[in-house]
Parts: sequence; C-alpha cells; structure tokens
Amino acid sequence: MTVRTEHGTHLAGPVLVIGAGLLGASIGLGLRARGLDVVLSDASPSTEAVARDIGAGRVLDEQGTDTALRPELVVVATPPDVTARVVAGALHRYPDAVVVDICSVKEAVVRELTALPDVVAHLPRYVGTHPMAGREKSGPVAARGELFTGAPWVLCAHAGSAPEAVLLAESLAVDLGAVPARMTAEEHDDAVALISHLPQVVSSLVASRLQESPARALSLAGNGLRDVTRIAASDPRLWVQILSANAARLVDILHGVRADLDRLIATLEDPAANGARLDMAQLMAEGNAGQARVPGKHGTPPGSFAHLTVLVDDVPGQIAKLLTEIGDTGINVEDFRLEHSPGRELGLAELSVLPGKDKELTESLTQRGWKVVQ
Amino acid sequence: MTVRTEHGTHLAGPVLVIGAGLLGASIGLGLRARGLDVVLSDASPSTEAVARDIGAGRVLDEQGTDTALRPELVVVATPPDVTARVVAGALHRYPDAVVVDICSVKEAVVRELTALPDVVAHLPRYVGTHPMAGREKSGPVAARGELFTGAPWVLCAHAGSAPEAVLLAESLAVDLGAVPARMTAEEHDDAVALISHLPQVVSSLVASRLQESPARALSLAGNGLRDVTRIAASDPRLWVQILSANAARLVDILHGVRADLDRLIATLEDPAANGARLDMAQLMAEGNAGQARVPGKHGTPPGSFAHLTVLVDDVPGQIAKLLTEIGDTGINVEDFRLEHSPGRELGLAELSVLPGKDKELTESLTQRGWKVVQ
Repeated sequence: MTVRTEHGTHLAGPVLVIGAGLLGASIGLGLRARGLDVVLSDASPSTEAVARDIGAGRVLDEQGTDTALRPELVVVATPPDVTARVVAGALHRYPDAVVVDICSVKEAVVRELTALPDVVAHLPRYVGTHPMAGREKSGPVAARGELFTGAPWVLCAHAGSAPEAVLLAESLAVDLGAVPARMTAEEHDDAVALISHLPQVVSSLVASRLQESPARALSLAGNGLRDVTRIAASDPRLWVQILSANAARLVDILHGVRADLDRLIATLEDPAANGARLDMAQLMAEGNAGQARVPGKHGTPPGSFAHLTVLVDDVPGQIAKLLTEIGDTGINVEDFRLEHSPGRELGLAELSVLPGKDKELTESLTQRGWKVVQ
Repeated sequence: MTVRTEHGTHLAGPVLVIGAGLLGASIGLGLRARGLDVVLSDASPSTEAVARDIGAGRVLDEQGTDTALRPELVVVATPPDVTARVVAGALHRYPDAVVVDICSVKEAVVRELTALPDVVAHLPRYVGTHPMAGREKSGPVAARGELFTGAPWVLCAHAGSAPEAVLLAESLAVDLGAVPARMTAEEHDDAVALISHLPQVVSSLVASRLQESPARALSLAGNGLRDVTRIAASDPRLWVQILSANAARLVDILHGVRADLDRLIATLEDPAANGARLDMAQLMAEGNAGQARVPGKHGTPPGSFAHLTVLVDDVPGQIAKLLTEIGDTGINVEDFRLEHSPGRELGLAELSVLPGKDKELTESLTQRGWKVVQ
C-alpha cells in the first residue's frame, strides 16, 4: 500500500461504478471527493441521472468517447441477482481493468462466475468484496461519501485472484476510509448469515407482530422495542436477493432458533411444570452469554467504557453548553446519546468515557451545576 | 391533582418502599429528591443498606419507632413472584395506607390477591401500577431518581379500587416525573406481551446463537446486531418471573412468530421454488408495515424528524465545538447520536431536528467549515 497518486490516493482512476444506488453512488461520492475520475452507469436512466446530479461521477456515454474508456477499476454495485453477469460483462469489456463487486453474499457470485462460458481466463482480475456499511434507506439520494468511513471492508480473494488485483481492491477500501479485512468467501458468508441476515429476519418477524396491535399498546413502547425492530424498515426487494443467495447458511441458524423457540413455547405453555422455569432461565442466560460477545461501537469488547447520565433541559443551546463544558475538561466523549422524554421538556444525555474518567467528569460537571444522575 | 404539599409534591408522605432493588431504590431516590420522607425495607439486609447509603431513604427499624409508622402510601417493588403476598401483608399492617405495586405484569397480581384470605375487604386501597422504565442493569447501585422522568406509568385500577386510591397512585407517578396512563390490567398485559416481552425473548434467542461463533465473524458486526441483541443482557432471574406471569399472552404471540419462522424456513430451504421469493418479500414487507407503527423517541410518529450527519474529529472539544455552534443557530437538536469508527480518529454525529430546520442547519454549519454529509 505504498503507491500514492497525485491525489494522495492509492487508486489512480478512472473508476467505473456500475449500479448507482445507495452503495454505488456513495462509492462515487467518496472517490470524487478524493479527486478521482469516476464514471457511472446504471440500468435505470433516472437513478444514473440522480447519482450524477449529487456529484457521484460523470455518466458513461454509450455513443461517445466512452468506447475509449479504460478504467483502472470497475466496481460492480448492482443488486445481488445480476452481480455475476455484470462482473462477467465488465471482465470482457474492459480487459485491462480489475473488477470487484460489493455484493453482500460472496460464495454465490464466484460459483456463478465460474459456471459462465469464457470467464475463467479473466478471473485473475476479479476480486469479491463486501463493505460492511449500509443504511435502512436506499437509492442514490441516501448516498454519502463517508458511508464507509471506519467500517470493515471484507476482501474475498478466490483461489485464482491475482495479487495485484487484491491490492487494487484493497486500495479502493483504503481510499474510502474503510478498514480492509481479508477472509475466504466461506468465512464471510458464514459470518454475515449470523451477524447480519439473522438479526434482519428476526427483526422483521418481531415487527410483523405489531401490524394489528392497538396504537395504545404501541404508545407504551420503549427503546427495547425500538432497537429490536429498527432494521425491519429495510428494503424487501434487496433483502430477498441477499437471503436467497445465502439461504443454506441462514436456514441452518434458523433451525437452531426454531429449536430454542419451541423450548421456550413449551415452558410458557405450562410455566408451573417441573423444570419449566429452569429451562426459561437457561434460555435467558444463553442470551446473556451471546450478547456479552458482541463488540462495542469501536470494535472494542463490550463494557470497555464507563457511562454516566446528565439531565439536560430541552432548550436550544443546553446540550451545546454541556458539551462545551465537557470539552473544557479535556476528557473525550467516546459516545453520546440523547434520550428524550415524551411530553416533558427534559432530556437525559448518556455519555461514554474511558473507564476511570467517569468519576473525574462527574465531579467536574457537578461542580459546574449539572445534575449527573449516574 | 390540585393538592400540593409544602414540598410542591402531590404526595405528603411518608412513603414506605418495600423492595429496594433498581426500581424501589430509584423511587426512593426520586421522592427523597423532592423532599419526601421515604422509608425502605428489603428482605436482603445488604440491598437495604446499599439503598440507604445512596440516599434512597431511611431504613425501616423493626424494633424501634417504626411500629408507629403510618405511611400515606406503600410501594411494593419486590420481584413479581412475591408481589401479591407482600401487597396483602402491607394492606393488613398499614390499614390507613394506599398500597400500590409496580410489578410488570398486572392481571396475575389481582387474581392472586383476590384468592388470598381476608384481603378482599382491603382491596379498595390497592392499585396496580407499572412504570415503563428499567435498565439492563439491576440492584440499587444502578438506581437513579430520574429513571421515570417522562416515561409512561400505567395505572390499572381494579373494579373495587377507591377513586382516592387511584388518585394517590397517580400522585406517585406525577411526583416522579412520569406520565400516568390509565388502562385495565388486561389491556396492560396484552400490551407488554407485545412491546416488551416479545422483543426481550427474541433478542435473547438471537444473542444465544452468538455463543459459539468465531470472534472474527463478530468483529464485522454493525449496529443492526448490536441493537437487536442489546436487551439480551437483561437479568434472567427477573425475566423468568415476568414471563411466567404473562405466559399465556406471550405464548399466543410466539405461536404467530413460529408460524412466520416456519414460512421463512420453508422458503429458504428451496429459494428457487415457485413463489418462494414472493413469500420472502411478503414477510419482509409485513415487517416494514409493523415497524412503521413504532412511535419515535418523543412518542411521536416515526419520521417526524429530519436527520443530518456531520463529520467530527475524535479529539476532545470537537463535539462540544459542533454543538456550541449548533446552539448559536438557535435550532434545537431533537436527538444526537455519535457513531465512532473502529480504528479511525473520526466520528459521525447524527443529528435530528424538526423537519424544515435541516436545510437551515446544514447551510449554517457548512458556512462554519463543518462537513455535513447529509
């Protein structure tokens, strides 16, 4: 990763981005912001135009000079269903380019590619990748160049990937501020089934139960329900393709969930039965054990930060005042979350700081007249 | 609610709080902060001592003057299993007091109470309540007087509750800054099965799957997994009692979840089958529809706020500077969430403001040199 261009980037460009939705347009925006020449192409003329208009790149002109386009890198950011075919087309059309895709399932793409005629000879120039970033929103309007900042970007070289191609794929990740992580397609697909596809479908299953519930019941909902159902807002069209492409792995995990759910239902159908409560406690304790393994926001182990809560009046400037005074102490805020109160002009600011800094900060804020409630 | 004491509270005290865990101690702290006399009692001497030491109230002295204690209100904050028996004991021992409990399931308590000997005559003085507040942590050390601020506090009068008793229960909620909501025990138990017990058990089921997964897989986890599994950290001992007490209602909902899970598993076992993708899309769309009904943090409909994201360097004072400058604009921040980046000295500050204010704020911040990415 020592090559540096005049722009201070690892890539030199031009970069052709095929598929100008949320991720494609975000890649375009990010690379353009770093001074690279980005050319966009999308099957939908209106998506392509929106992506161009927000500054994600110039449009590939079929009739014009673009027959002469010789991209350094082609990024295939199309929906999963068509990814392999588009990758194959790009490998043929741009014989000097490295081609990467960013599809969220990796083994299926390689499998489909190797089954296509006349592709095998080109495969050294292909690398599968997956940036671990996204939003509940879709389309180029939701795009942002900083979407990948600090996020892991998985690189899945296949057995025949050329080392230079892998390095160029890594350059893309680094130039967009992401953290490259190399693993096999199998490792990747196992991981995302568990950490992405499982929470997605379960969130949808829970949210689905809310369809017919009285609004009065929902008005009592707290952060627990909100957090569990947030990703249930995701786009069904995209997710059907992702789930289909990783179906076998996800279904294995879901069989485990169903077995546990059956155990739970059995205990709840006769909670007074011998052993029912022990079974219930066991299921909850297993959840505790799994939850404790989820890394925190920094990718650090859970519990790495100390937390404190400060009462804040809900008027302009109060939160700013609080954070100015925290800034004055020189203690860095690792995380900050404001919890509002329905029907009251009061908020709870939840702050995370490095362990050991919480007492110092509590004392300092209390002296300045803030109410620190923990 | 026009009665006001010398303290500016609706209650006059003394208030006896039986059970000095997270909720009991938080009630004690909140009422003490408003100047009321709070007496604490807990089956565990050490819990009782900790609650006293953090300022949640004085301790009930069995040998001393407390035989003369005449509480205005007794708050039973014991674990669900023993709630009815403790309520009955308090009704007998303090014949002038109103007795409320704060157990998270309401019908079971009334049913058990009415089945106890010699209690029926006292029942007009009993009101079941449930503050919709809690934490993943437990015990008096986690208590805070502002725990109930702005949260709904459900009051479930039974057929025989005296109107004065209901008013006094409401006074407790109001004095602690909560928002009283009257409903029947049936309505309440239906609601919490859906909005609290369902997300809790499903979060545990998902987290449970993470027990054996490679740490490498978990290192890719994003906010989706973190949000879905957060409440899986909750206390199994408490939850076994809650789930048992509302088992019939929860199990009805879980049968619906299992039916959907079976549909999903069937589609994933043969994703190429006729209709499989349509079924999958339908399940996801049902999740969209349910999620859209979850109220936002203010109890407002979802989508009530406009969002924008600002890049912030991860050095002390930068976030404070940002919020000071937002404060200067006079635009109120409705929500603020800081997303950190593993391995990078950069954060994304996600701000929510009233719709229409986002453009004004974006312009103003951009002029001041901030990078607003959406």
